[in-house]
Amino acid sequence: MAGNVLVVHGGGPTAVINSSLYGVIEEAKASGKIDKVYGAMGGSEAILKERFLDLMQFPEEKLKLLLETPATAIGSSRYALEDEDYQAMPEIFKKYGIQYVLLNGGNGTMDTCGKIYHACKDSGIYVVGIPKTIDNDIAITDHTPGYGSAARYIAATTAEVGVDVKSLPIHVCVIEAMGRNAGWITAASVLARKKPGDAPHLIYLPEFPFNEEQFLEDVKKLYDEKGGVVVVASEGLKDEKGEPIVPPIFKSGRATYYGDVSAHLANLVIQKLGIKARSEKPGICGRASIAWQSPVDRDEAVLAGREALKAAMNGESGVMIGFIRDETPDGSYKIHVERIPIEQVMLYERVIPETYVNERRNDVTEEFIKWCRPLIGPELRDFIDFNDYYDKEGEKE
Amino acid sequence: MAGNVLVVHGGGPTAVINSSLYGVIEEAKASGKIDKVYGAMGGSEAILKERFLDLMQFPEEKLKLLLETPATAIGSSRYALEDEDYQAMPEIFKKYGIQYVLLNGGNGTMDTCGKIYHACKDSGIYVVGIPKTIDNDIAITDHTPGYGSAARYIAATTAEVGVDVKSLPIHVCVIEAMGRNAGWITAASVLARKKPGDAPHLIYLPEFPFNEEQFLEDVKKLYDEKGGVVVVASEGLKDEKGEPIVPPIFKSGRATYYGDVSAHLANLVIQKLGIKARSEKPGICGRASIAWQSPVDRDEAVLAGREALKAAMNGESGVMIGFIRDETPDGSYKIHVERIPIEQVMLYERVIPETYVNERRNDVTEEFIKWCRPLIGPELRDFIDFNDYYDKEGEKE
Repeated sequence: MAGNVLVVHGGGPTAVINSSLYGVIEEAKASGKIDKVYGAMGGSEAILKERFLDLMQFPEEKLKLLLETPATAIGSSRYALEDEDYQAMPEIFKKYGIQYVLLNGGNGTMDTCGKIYHACKDSGIYVVGIPKTIDNDIAITDHTPGYGSAARYIAATTAEVGVDVKSLPIHVCVIEAMGRNAGWITAASVLARKKPGDAPHLIYLPEFPFNEEQFLEDVKKLYDEKGGVVVVASEGLKDEKGEPIVPPIFKSGRATYYGDVSAHLANLVIQKLGIKARSEKPGICGRASIAWQSPVDRDEAVLAGREALKAAMNGESGVMIGFIRDETPDGSYKIHVERIPIEQVMLYERVIPETYVNERRNDVTEEFIKWCRPLIGPELRDFIDFNDYYDKEGEKE
Repeated sequence: MAGNVLVVHGGGPTAVINSSLYGVIEEAKASGKIDKVYGAMGGSEAILKERFLDLMQFPEEKLKLLLETPATAIGSSRYALEDEDYQAMPEIFKKYGIQYVLLNGGNGTMDTCGKIYHACKDSGIYVVGIPKTIDNDIAITDHTPGYGSAARYIAATTAEVGVDVKSLPIHVCVIEAMGRNAGWITAASVLARKKPGDAPHLIYLPEFPFNEEQFLEDVKKLYDEKGGVVVVASEGLKDEKGEPIVPPIFKSGRATYYGDVSAHLANLVIQKLGIKARSEKPGICGRASIAWQSPVDRDEAVLAGREALKAAMNGESGVMIGFIRDETPDGSYKIHVERIPIEQVMLYERVIPETYVNERRNDVTEEFIKWCRPLIGPELRDFIDFNDYYDKEGEKE
């Protein structure tokens, strides 16, 4: 036996973090060289507490449930490790025969991954990162596991809410999307739009200053035209000074609490335009949705898990698995895996580039759509709307 | 030919209102006696505007899409009809050879249905109601088409959010459910709970006064025990004086606007208990979700549509189709259809009875679960949580 594996989950869950865990276990089995795949039961904190559970002992039918279980089946944490914590780790790993340490998470976790890598450098322990975040804000990799499913959820939900609002066109509906600093999820709502006029009608990203006057002007114009308007807005919208657009509600310790962006925008529409409005805030509902899990995302998450273990067993350390998108002759979607030095991704936050947003900052571009489309998997369901067939001529109201 | 049919949709959509429309069209075809099934394109208002589209002309493959299309494919409205509007209707119906008028909607629509029935009484036009509302607040019928899907959505979503919160147990999550005066949807979240300790941990219905002190006490106790707590609360919670628990934000005309109950409760938890909290508000997302459509609900919605046309063609008028639940020897679920005089349901609001709620008013009873369970269809997906297998002894934190 070459040694045992430890998998650690960090930060908030996605719809496919468990799929990466499944990939690690399957790769461990396939290698024939791994005795135990330990799960750290409760994030990085669990390393120090030696809370390890061997997952190889479970039958395949239980393990397969990982592919359709949201959240993380081994728990997670937001525990901030101290220097001395890192120093204590090599001994703990050795005690359990752990030779390969795989950290699955976002920017914060990749920082932890880099630090564990340094602490373990000369001890024959290999440390590899598996990217994971619905926010898609990790550097260099084309996208992150977890994003495609969050994107599919927001697109499908916007499509469903869109037909609802269209069929009883009496209000403006503001949907709030997760991603405080990066608008990747918010932007993906555009994939709800199958034909011109479909929701979403307005999209606002946190990377670009939000202009209240323009927003109200745009909403008014669309409302007069359609009756029902669907707006998708990031939870982290900021004004031109970089301040959150929602006034703070209260402070508690060092944290300031703001109201919800969606409720704030809906209230603006009611107060300033006198138009009925309501808000939708399906935050965790989105990252935990298995119904809208993207099969592409799930398969790539499994792949990332397998490739992370392969890299570690190959003697690589201090790297994160990343996806690089390939050019293909017919433009079809294809990626390959690369091992990215962890220093290049630690704590760096990747945001939406200018070319993905229109000039008025209230929509995304074809370039974004082309990039995002393959990540959400199969085409969304077609709906029937008999209004499309009803001749409205002479029926102008 | 016996005559044409007109279907009118009123009020807010559900995930299966289009399924009832499908049922009407299928029944019309099967009868061999109907020439045209008109859809009123845009609710009751569309009758006066004579905005009618014949739906029999569409091929079966298009019509089948109705079964998986949320919203209403012929539109809806909240237009308030006047006395003279009702008086004008018999002439309009005759002009289009409409002998059967089917109104699909909730309490308000059943009121309209009763009034159209009276206006058409001696003109050989038969008027029948098809119940529809996610709120399940129509009298006499055991439940309404639309409710089972809304119930399945909230149960599935609470289960998914529940495992997310459990796997990173650092906050209290408050999910807001639709139903301002009736807690049927909120209550159905209990079906997420497969074993003791599963979410939802606290359930608050609008029928029973909300006690802030008890709420904070209950949340604190659960948080100390678990770390992650899931609360499901109705959007319409009221205090002991019957006033909304959320302070009004502003008034506009005769309407007063309140903040969101979920955000309000989350803020209370942060401010008064110093515990991290967040809110989820998937309102329209729920009533428009096809992924969580209940197959039982969909089939019953089709049935309600078919039975409504059958009743009308049978010469009945001024009735609503209702479901009566049958006692069965093995306790299995079975209903039969009855035709309920429309006077008995017009504008009457059905709320949750005392026997469905526990004494502390923070949970529902087994009796409710037994009533609700069959309506949501197949068992929800099983998730894997390795914490269930991890022996926590000696690991007390």
